[in-house]
Amino acid sequence: MKNYKITIQYDGTAYNGWQVQNNTDNTIQGKLEHILSRLSGEHIDVNGSGRTDAGVHAYGQVANFHMDPPEGQTPEDILLYINRYLPEDIAVTDIEEVDDRFHARLSAKSKTYRYRLQVSPIADPFSKRYVYTYLDAPLDIDSMRKAAKLLIGEHDFRSFCGNKHMKKSTVRTITDITIDSVYDSHGVKEIAIDYTGDGFLQNMVRIITGTLIEVGTNRRTPESIADTLAALDRATAGYTAPPQGLCLMEVQY
Amino acid sequence: MKNYKITIQYDGTAYNGWQVQNNTDNTIQGKLEHILSRLSGEHIDVNGSGRTDAGVHAYGQVANFHMDPPEGQTPEDILLYINRYLPEDIAVTDIEEVDDRFHARLSAKSKTYRYRLQVSPIADPFSKRYVYTYLDAPLDIDSMRKAAKLLIGEHDFRSFCGNKHMKKSTVRTITDITIDSVYDSHGVKEIAIDYTGDGFLQNMVRIITGTLIEVGTNRRTPESIADTLAALDRATAGYTAPPQGLCLMEVQY
Repeated sequence: MKNYKITIQYDGTAYNGWQVQNNTDNTIQGKLEHILSRLSGEHIDVNGSGRTDAGVHAYGQVANFHMDPPEGQTPEDILLYINRYLPEDIAVTDIEEVDDRFHARLSAKSKTYRYRLQVSPIADPFSKRYVYTYLDAPLDIDSMRKAAKLLIGEHDFRSFCGNKHMKKSTVRTITDITIDSVYDSHGVKEIAIDYTGDGFLQNMVRIITGTLIEVGTNRRTPESIADTLAALDRATAGYTAPPQGLCLMEVQY
Repeated sequence: MKNYKITIQYDGTAYNGWQVQNNTDNTIQGKLEHILSRLSGEHIDVNGSGRTDAGVHAYGQVANFHMDPPEGQTPEDILLYINRYLPEDIAVTDIEEVDDRFHARLSAKSKTYRYRLQVSPIADPFSKRYVYTYLDAPLDIDSMRKAAKLLIGEHDFRSFCGNKHMKKSTVRTITDITIDSVYDSHGVKEIAIDYTGDGFLQNMVRIITGTLIEVGTNRRTPESIADTLAALDRATAGYTAPPQGLCLMEVQY
């Protein structure tokens, strides 16, 4: 058996997220396993670096799988085969043979997510699938940056966890949050928030983003984030920003 | 009656083009007329600068309409009303009151269209709605530029007209064709072909693009374009490039 590491891009709009579920095969992992199992003739398990929620995108999701390659097939042949059968909104952009011990989730050191916000009186028809168009009010980016700083480091992020019944540790380390004003290819102003950390709890990036938006519109003070962290209570944090603005950019190993 | 000039953006993927047709109301013009007629209480005709085909996008389509504004409503109020009821993939980005003689089509001096091509072994899931992913071969851009030069100026473009029964003049003037290699926001290489001219026949930009692709892949010589123009016969030109790569960028008045 060989161990293959693949990098995957997807527009998550039409999918029920990364992870295979019993009641639907409309998942990214499911599409990949289906194609690889057909190629191999046996069931192939694809291990992702982590789940992405329904509607969330990936520019650089990473996964690995163990497979006996069909006679004479190089990794490049396998990549072409997968892309031939994948729907247009999913693409495998890279494949490499890796050490047998490599595991996309367990070997990951950190991940970077980007949340894209568009602050505009009029929603842009061309990016609406990939940004959260926040129409209500301009955002105070300086306040958002102050609040974000309080989240850097190792903390118990229970207040920012969407799973109320989470039994495992909710301690994570966020190493960086950067908030930039950027312009998309059509000149529309966007705010991109990049989060890097050793791991993220369910909905954590979206809940932090919703909370930072509340700071940016003066519904919370930047300093209040310390209390929110200390409360260890989801109800004290902000709303869950919608999935379409979120994209898993990169997994670092 | 006041005369309003509006600028419209749309993702044309889901529509049967700009122009109202008898058998469907799934057109951009139809959506606008429906909303404005409801606002006004009378049927409002919306004149576009020109048709766009099914699946073609617009970043700066222009239209005008005559309407008695409802009591006390400013142009800005009308713009907000329209955007509130438009589907998410259409937006009116600008409105202004103009001279009564202004007509979006008749007053137009020139138009600029952009055709976006992606030359990649793997289709990019994020831009697939807006580019033509040409997977076959790299393109010789220098040859394409040489061929494009022969199309500049006033010519009878009958060979590049999709309407075989066109009875009116097929003479048009193309003032500029520029071909640039660009990188999209994800770093994927694109070729953008910008066409500016006083008017374009049905499918003309898409047929010229298909012909330039055939030049770029050495299936035609750049010099052969002169013969194609002189033939006045659609069969001598290249294939019609698909609609999703095309976008009406700007109308000049």
